[in-house]
Amino acid sequence: MAVMFRPHHKNFTWQDVEKLAYKDAGDAPFKDVTRQVLFSGADLKSELRYFEVAPNGYTTLERHEHVHAVMILRGAGHCLLGSDVRAVKAYDLIAVPPLTWHQLRAGSEEPLGFLCMVDAARDKPQLPDEQDLKALNADPLVAAFLKG
Amino acid sequence: MAVMFRPHHKNFTWQDVEKLAYKDAGDAPFKDVTRQVLFSGADLKSELRYFEVAPNGYTTLERHEHVHAVMILRGAGHCLLGSDVRAVKAYDLIAVPPLTWHQLRAGSEEPLGFLCMVDAARDKPQLPDEQDLKALNADPLVAAFLKG
Repeated sequence: MAVMFRPHHKNFTWQDVEKLAYKDAGDAPFKDVTRQVLFSGADLKSELRYFEVAPNGYTTLERHEHVHAVMILRGAGHCLLGSDVRAVKAYDLIAVPPLTWHQLRAGSEEPLGFLCMVDAARDKPQLPDEQDLKALNADPLVAAFLKG
Repeated sequence: MAVMFRPHHKNFTWQDVEKLAYKDAGDAPFKDVTRQVLFSGADLKSELRYFEVAPNGYTTLERHEHVHAVMILRGAGHCLLGSDVRAVKAYDLIAVPPLTWHQLRAGSEEPLGFLCMVDAARDKPQLPDEQDLKALNADPLVAAFLKG
């Protein structure tokens, strides 16, 4: 069991929680995202992570079998979910169903921070190929979102 | 899969999220606590719930095999964890290890709201018997906490 009390310091950093690179692989496109693992361990079937996207940054456009359970914690931005584009703000809830393309983009003013709960045992994200991108960009709203 | 986007309304209520009684059983002592299940379903191994304790309210003093992964979201109060009593505030993290007595108490000024992630499959909470309460109250700091 990890340390039991970990106070919030400031600006969404915590005692004994390391700020990590968002992705290990260098080939998944994203911009200005950090990752902090808040809860993870053998005694939990899931993990709770905090991600923060700097102004104008974005997470990787991806899909996977496992589900993402997201709560926005700070800032504002937009989220792509399948062919839906929505404005998101603090405390909004987003459920990403299996194999649904998704991406979060911060606005230009402030960082977009969010919690994401996932099963500890999960499949690897898939990236869109040229055909997937063509299909996504066929929708003008989605195309505008992806353009940023 | 549940509704994908559920905006935060105000004051920690959400679209399509019902405010529930904290406990089903009438025999577990607690005071002024509500429960909202934010994420739960067959496609997730865990649940994310939001609990809110009104000023001067408190959750049930209990323990169980399963682990609680808690993030305070609003307000301030105190938490008992084993024989540790800590002041808690927004965004603090609390990990409740297996079979550890715990209780959260709101301060007198504002509600104490927190997220709690748990495994979907989990054991039932145990309540303290007279001997457990005697052992807990043997520590003056714990006794003062339990007195409120």
